[in-house]
Amino acid sequence: MAPQYAQSLRFRLPPLLFFLQTGFIVVFIFYVDIEQNVQTKQHAFNNYYSEFQDVHVMVILGFGFLATFLVRYSFSGAGFTLLVAAMAVQWAVILNGVESMYHRGKIWINMRSLVVAEMCTASSLIAIGAVLGKTNPVHLLLIALLEISGFVLNGWLLQTFLKVQFLNTIMLLHIFGAFFGLMLSWVLYRQGSEQQHEKEKIDRKTGLFSVMGTLFLWMFWPSFNSVLVEVDHLDRGRSLRAVYSTYLALAVSAVTAAGFSVLTSPQGKLNLFHIQRCTLAGGVAIGVAMSAVHLPWVAMAIGFAAALISTLGSRYIKVRINKFLNCPWAFTISYYCFFLFQPLMLFAFECHDTCGVLSVHGLPGILGWMVQLFLQIADSDDLTTAVRFAVFHICTLLITLSLSMSLGLITGDFQQYCTYVIGVTGGLEL
Amino acid sequence: MAPQYAQSLRFRLPPLLFFLQTGFIVVFIFYVDIEQNVQTKQHAFNNYYSEFQDVHVMVILGFGFLATFLVRYSFSGAGFTLLVAAMAVQWAVILNGVESMYHRGKIWINMRSLVVAEMCTASSLIAIGAVLGKTNPVHLLLIALLEISGFVLNGWLLQTFLKVQFLNTIMLLHIFGAFFGLMLSWVLYRQGSEQQHEKEKIDRKTGLFSVMGTLFLWMFWPSFNSVLVEVDHLDRGRSLRAVYSTYLALAVSAVTAAGFSVLTSPQGKLNLFHIQRCTLAGGVAIGVAMSAVHLPWVAMAIGFAAALISTLGSRYIKVRINKFLNCPWAFTISYYCFFLFQPLMLFAFECHDTCGVLSVHGLPGILGWMVQLFLQIADSDDLTTAVRFAVFHICTLLITLSLSMSLGLITGDFQQYCTYVIGVTGGLEL
Amino acid sequence: MAPQYAQSLRFRLPPLLFFLQTGFIVVFIFYVDIEQNVQTKQHAFNNYYSEFQDVHVMVILGFGFLATFLVRYSFSGAGFTLLVAAMAVQWAVILNGVESMYHRGKIWINMRSLVVAEMCTASSLIAIGAVLGKTNPVHLLLIALLEISGFVLNGWLLQTFLKVQFLNTIMLLHIFGAFFGLMLSWVLYRQGSEQQHEKEKIDRKTGLFSVMGTLFLWMFWPSFNSVLVEVDHLDRGRSLRAVYSTYLALAVSAVTAAGFSVLTSPQGKLNLFHIQRCTLAGGVAIGVAMSAVHLPWVAMAIGFAAALISTLGSRYIKVRINKFLNCPWAFTISYYCFFLFQPLMLFAFECHDTCGVLSVHGLPGILGWMVQLFLQIADSDDLTTAVRFAVFHICTLLITLSLSMSLGLITGDFQQYCTYVIGVTGGLEL
Repeated sequence: MAPQYAQSLRFRLPPLLFFLQTGFIVVFIFYVDIEQNVQTKQHAFNNYYSEFQDVHVMVILGFGFLATFLVRYSFSGAGFTLLVAAMAVQWAVILNGVESMYHRGKIWINMRSLVVAEMCTASSLIAIGAVLGKTNPVHLLLIALLEISGFVLNGWLLQTFLKVQFLNTIMLLHIFGAFFGLMLSWVLYRQGSEQQHEKEKIDRKTGLFSVMGTLFLWMFWPSFNSVLVEVDHLDRGRSLRAVYSTYLALAVSAVTAAGFSVLTSPQGKLNLFHIQRCTLAGGVAIGVAMSAVHLPWVAMAIGFAAALISTLGSRYIKVRINKFLNCPWAFTISYYCFFLFQPLMLFAFECHDTCGVLSVHGLPGILGWMVQLFLQIADSDDLTTAVRFAVFHICTLLITLSLSMSLGLITGDFQQYCTYVIGVTGGLEL
Repeated sequence: MAPQYAQSLRFRLPPLLFFLQTGFIVVFIFYVDIEQNVQTKQHAFNNYYSEFQDVHVMVILGFGFLATFLVRYSFSGAGFTLLVAAMAVQWAVILNGVESMYHRGKIWINMRSLVVAEMCTASSLIAIGAVLGKTNPVHLLLIALLEISGFVLNGWLLQTFLKVQFLNTIMLLHIFGAFFGLMLSWVLYRQGSEQQHEKEKIDRKTGLFSVMGTLFLWMFWPSFNSVLVEVDHLDRGRSLRAVYSTYLALAVSAVTAAGFSVLTSPQGKLNLFHIQRCTLAGGVAIGVAMSAVHLPWVAMAIGFAAALISTLGSRYIKVRINKFLNCPWAFTISYYCFFLFQPLMLFAFECHDTCGVLSVHGLPGILGWMVQLFLQIADSDDLTTAVRFAVFHICTLLITLSLSMSLGLITGDFQQYCTYVIGVTGGLEL
Repeated sequence: MAPQYAQSLRFRLPPLLFFLQTGFIVVFIFYVDIEQNVQTKQHAFNNYYSEFQDVHVMVILGFGFLATFLVRYSFSGAGFTLLVAAMAVQWAVILNGVESMYHRGKIWINMRSLVVAEMCTASSLIAIGAVLGKTNPVHLLLIALLEISGFVLNGWLLQTFLKVQFLNTIMLLHIFGAFFGLMLSWVLYRQGSEQQHEKEKIDRKTGLFSVMGTLFLWMFWPSFNSVLVEVDHLDRGRSLRAVYSTYLALAVSAVTAAGFSVLTSPQGKLNLFHIQRCTLAGGVAIGVAMSAVHLPWVAMAIGFAAALISTLGSRYIKVRINKFLNCPWAFTISYYCFFLFQPLMLFAFECHDTCGVLSVHGLPGILGWMVQLFLQIADSDDLTTAVRFAVFHICTLLITLSLSMSLGLITGDFQQYCTYVIGVTGGLEL
């Protein structure tokens, strides 16, 4: 299953790209148009355009250069991310507009639909971060498109059946992407993950590019968390509170990550990976918990906790997993009962997780979800509201986890099947 | 004509810089002032400032780092671009204000005049992209100033005699810059271009900087195409349509460029140059065609076609040129009849084109022009309007091509003359 | 006093970080809240948010990557800057809010308070730029926090006793940071500064990252100088004038720096350091002089002069210092009379100044101060106003210089004491 950058790729990637791209253009011909109501557009433009650009920079440059730390993969990391993002954005615009197409006959493009599409793309880039460097671009592209389909379906289910607010569903992108990617990584690389791929080795020379990608994510994260807030609430104050909360959480997160990084390092050194991954954990956690956070110190405490579990996670989880795996029945049970014991199963993973999506996006996302639950219950006036909210909130997480993990499993199994049946004989990887 | 970074440069670049800079300051003392009407400024500021910054980032960082892929030239590429841009912006402010100075006695600086100056600077950076790495900074500076003079003159001619809208003339910057640079490159490097300059060799290590420059151009291109739209039309809707169209065209362009890059590579690999050059072709083409594009799928189709001709152009043109050049009469005729047969002559070039400006800016620009012609004719109600438009539109292109190519030729010949007459004896390159 | 990245750091940095961070969170619990007045916030958001982001990018990415040119220190330069900035911003928010806490019972977070906090952080990053590569992160962190305390105190003194406008006090950040850092560097590295630290050696390979940091500072400086203007004057025109003035000063500065760099180089080459440092001098000088600059050519002349003294300063000061130091009484007198003869003493420094803060921030800042003095006197109607202004203006500079230099001296002496008393026995550097 090693990526074979052989000639065979030449005859599979271009046809796939042209087929999909032509298909997208055909869909756009018949169903997509630019929204014409200038009045609201004027409003939308002033409020959105610079935040949209910040999100755009995060998705293209931030995630793209975050992936450049792999030796012999730095250029491919940036190139494939651009390719996948350019494709995924179009697919997300179409999928997010399906409901509008059903009701109003057209998919309308406006600033908000592009921002939502960029966020779905971010979700898919998180997912492919788990298998980057071990997967060829054909795989990456299909994984991204499937992940976006699953994420949009998940949002639709939650909004339709649980009446979850749109903003809360979109912020699950970190959890959905991370667990999709982990499951995928587990299926595809169960065996043989001990020996490292050569392309997975870390290049310290391109490390600075990776730091730059991280800094772009870090700097613009307040825009990422605040850009969609106002839409639901028509209250600029809430949007600003999201900016300040994210800003403070990220600052505390950076300090905490540096502290733990030095503490857990035998040489007392700052670790490239901890800086790169765990400084962002605060932004993830506060993004998920945001609607319940009102005070600046709560945001700072969330940033502290997120960086803590992220640093510890990226350091100690692997060790515990390996011990757990030596116990065969635990492995077997957890495989087949995965939608009953997801949190347990996390520790049963042989999660060969290139970009550390579990500790950057998965664990902080779950933390944010728990903080939101706790704060909402504490804010409730009576017990009935609190219980009602708790039930809905827990269902939201369970549905998201089940859907992301099953889809990750199916995607992985399907790709593995294709690789074994066709791939072995013809070098065809899909 | 090899660049001699000898001591001689020390006695030519600084005097030139100080002479020009002092001259600019003197002009500013007598003729330039900051616009005082606060009311319109307030309006201008809110609408322009962030887009102005995006354009500024594209010109300084985008074009600057795009040029860092040359071995032993990466730092110089960024440094010279900064130097040329800082000079060119002042010159463009003065030239663009000459008409205002004639009528109102002063050149007024405002957001719009700075944005226009940055666009003229972009045009000159495209032109010097064709000779980068083979030319010393004294040459580069003079080329840039001459190119801007020609471009401003071209815009004035088109607006005065053909009543072309300002927005349409400014968007010809890609075509003007590309053909000016190509002509220059042809004159200066007709012979001896087979053996590569050492400074032109590609450095894979600084390739990531180059990718970063490309990504900044890619990300902020929607601002580049939309920032001046509204001025002419006072309709925010059109400006937003330009943003969406450019965004979609660039996404399709990136996907298509990746597809063709893999297809035309014998190893089935993504090519650094194709990603770097051809992903931007969609932005160029849609920028030129913009005023006639109303539907998103048209923008996507333009992006597809632009990336296609850009990839094919950067791969196959050189081969055909070399065959064509073996035929001596074709060479001779096309040289002397260049303003009758410009399109033909393209293929007669020995276009030793460092940054590939022909395939990034030249061909997609011509494509955008043709699409605009076609769409405007299709939109016309009666035949008279259509024919009238077509004649004016064709004249616009012919004037622009003639002017850019003759000026490129004259600039090149003049520089070559200086080099031969003075340079051979004293090592003086200008 | 060489930085020992020994295990000992492991047991000092994390406790310090956690102690300070927990302390900040506790202060935030009791005293800090997000401003609730939505009406003014809406206003503030539209005016501030994108400029705030520009300043944020300058502080985190600009200063962070400016420090990457040191060999074996490129990653640490970026990492420590992030760590120090994340801590310093929280400290600056608290300190700047002390007066508001005293009067209104709470420190309110809004866009303006964050922008001011970022500017104080910039001041501290300038100060640590003088000792970067020779100091461990524990030192850097404490220096930054002390510098911010001094800078906020200085602003409070000037506003309370001399009735200096807030904007004018905040723009002294360059002068305060530079002289604090120089004094510190002098105390800590008086002896043994001739032999270069290995970590101070320059790496040409990471030079491009450094150029990138410089370009980000260069591009976004207009936002830095203009973001706080409007607050004091409620006149958008003044804010725009600051944008245009800074833009022009920076352009002239870049051209002039390139010219002098080539002129003073024996090989006639552009020097990485001159480009990196002196192109920014224009932005510093115009920032300090801003409130008195009304005409574009004055801004350009300031940019020219700033780049001139910056280039000459970074080239010739060291030579003169060394000669001066051979004269022992000059050294002794200037040490003890430092608050009488500060300007003289500058030349008595053995200013082992890693990032060249004297020539980038110190000298251009003093230049800007002198231009402001001269322009204000020239603008005055009668002699009394002029003399009155001159006295106040000179007092402002003297107080700032005395405070920054005494605090730098005390900080340095204290750290040296700690190092000698405790450090020698236990390897404890603080």
